[in-house]
Amino acid sequence: MNSVTVHSPATVSNLGCGFDVLGLALGAPYDVVKVSRRAEPGVSIRHLDGFGLPTEPTRNVAGVALLALLAALPEPMGFEVEITKGIRPGSGIGSSAASAVGAVVGANALLGNRYSKAQLVDFAMAGEEIASGARHADNIAPAVYGGFTLVRAMEPSIDIVALAAPPLWVSIVHPQIEVKTIESRAVLPQAVPLPQAVRQWANVAGLVAGFLQANYALIGRSLEDVIVEPARQALIPGLAEARRRSLAAGAIGGGISGSGPSIFMLSETEATAQAVGRELSSVFEGLHIESFTYVGPVATEGARVVAR
Amino acid sequence: MNSVTVHSPATVSNLGCGFDVLGLALGAPYDVVKVSRRAEPGVSIRHLDGFGLPTEPTRNVAGVALLALLAALPEPMGFEVEITKGIRPGSGIGSSAASAVGAVVGANALLGNRYSKAQLVDFAMAGEEIASGARHADNIAPAVYGGFTLVRAMEPSIDIVALAAPPLWVSIVHPQIEVKTIESRAVLPQAVPLPQAVRQWANVAGLVAGFLQANYALIGRSLEDVIVEPARQALIPGLAEARRRSLAAGAIGGGISGSGPSIFMLSETEATAQAVGRELSSVFEGLHIESFTYVGPVATEGARVVAR
Repeated sequence: MNSVTVHSPATVSNLGCGFDVLGLALGAPYDVVKVSRRAEPGVSIRHLDGFGLPTEPTRNVAGVALLALLAALPEPMGFEVEITKGIRPGSGIGSSAASAVGAVVGANALLGNRYSKAQLVDFAMAGEEIASGARHADNIAPAVYGGFTLVRAMEPSIDIVALAAPPLWVSIVHPQIEVKTIESRAVLPQAVPLPQAVRQWANVAGLVAGFLQANYALIGRSLEDVIVEPARQALIPGLAEARRRSLAAGAIGGGISGSGPSIFMLSETEATAQAVGRELSSVFEGLHIESFTYVGPVATEGARVVAR
Repeated sequence: MNSVTVHSPATVSNLGCGFDVLGLALGAPYDVVKVSRRAEPGVSIRHLDGFGLPTEPTRNVAGVALLALLAALPEPMGFEVEITKGIRPGSGIGSSAASAVGAVVGANALLGNRYSKAQLVDFAMAGEEIASGARHADNIAPAVYGGFTLVRAMEPSIDIVALAAPPLWVSIVHPQIEVKTIESRAVLPQAVPLPQAVRQWANVAGLVAGFLQANYALIGRSLEDVIVEPARQALIPGLAEARRRSLAAGAIGGGISGSGPSIFMLSETEATAQAVGRELSSVFEGLHIESFTYVGPVATEGARVVAR
């Protein structure tokens, strides 16, 4: 086998109260990443999409992730990568994580799956680091594991927990406004009053219990973020109305996806999620802001090989 | 039926990272609370123990809890209460919560169990309030529900989640030092740096997942408190050594019980918990501080009627 094609999913990180630690994988959109062995050691990247992303391996998230994998590999090896991004860069649904994960999952398949999921997360984080300036696994982890994931710790070693959950549908709207990661970081409070922090971890506990006990109402009540969303909501016009109308249409809850500008909402059924998607579209139409909407189930699988 | 006797358990609140929201019920020690109907409306309290607690109903936690229950009752009624405390006041293992819960569970049995567990928590909190100055449910909830509990929210209404968990044994040491609640509150930080808050809620998420996935190792790793224990450890001599020796003896983790001075440790088996209990005793013997040690399983049931 000399070539594999991987579908690598979009992901929602933060999940309301679970800032920096919780995430989920989407069925769609996804990046298509084709990884082939090549004779010369090293990595080459080609983008078959029109987003104008850098293709120099040391400046490309998939390239850097593969270089990290190659650095750990005892034998010299080379990979050629073709990426067709289905996930728009800057959308706040894990675009860079998807490309990085797709590349290392593809390479790992060509290597007979010698690396564990935890190791793939580690390689992919090197890619994420050049995109966001920080080693974060909150989009990488769900892109590798699928479903819902908790990144419990990064130190002393990375500790990822996959969380079972009842079937859930996700409605995402990506309004065409730019929210720079640096700006969305700058508005975060440096410190949090203890009572707010307690309320946040009570909600995180409720959300995890809601997933594992398959309790939709508890999931909904726990999707409350008293710290990050209040700080960031001014960066995303329409957020409050999007939430109000989504809940009225039957969504169980939601919030900002990643650092925005996308907004996610969870629903129990596809029909509700479709109705919520229409509300989300309509909110931004009313604001004269172009937007893209995605509706699909939480993906139980992460990035996977679809062709060899 | 005119009289019931209730065993109402000691409880551990906070549970490391779960400050103010997580708790567990112990099999022992417990308060014995006998509640009888009486002809005249109102409440009378008698203590059969030697702790010198107030018996005036408005100054006694069980009395205040029963008065709250009576205030909600449409018909006039009266109760006589006899309390034999098995839980030493000021120990940090929910002594006042146990008496308050025992009284309302007993009265509820005499009323044909007309109140839900959530309502009993509400009545008992009125008692807890006069003991601690705050409406807290983190000892009350496990004393009513048994097992592990999450108090997800107090507002707009109280939201308690019972958390299934694998069998766990608890070793508790109660060193005979006084830690005043007001003092242990005063050392708490008013605000928490955001990265520490994130680490704490990641651990809370890991702890809840560890319980519900019956993953002992995850429970152990998640029993890390980066906020409250560092602030309070100076109030409890021997804490660091107690932890070190408990882990060496096989405990999976632990921390300060409530606001101290008691320390709790969790173990997978009774044999380990007994060994951990001996280590805990020995730490305080070495410090020439008298202490009481309790070893027992997490109780799956809360306060219960044992005789009618």
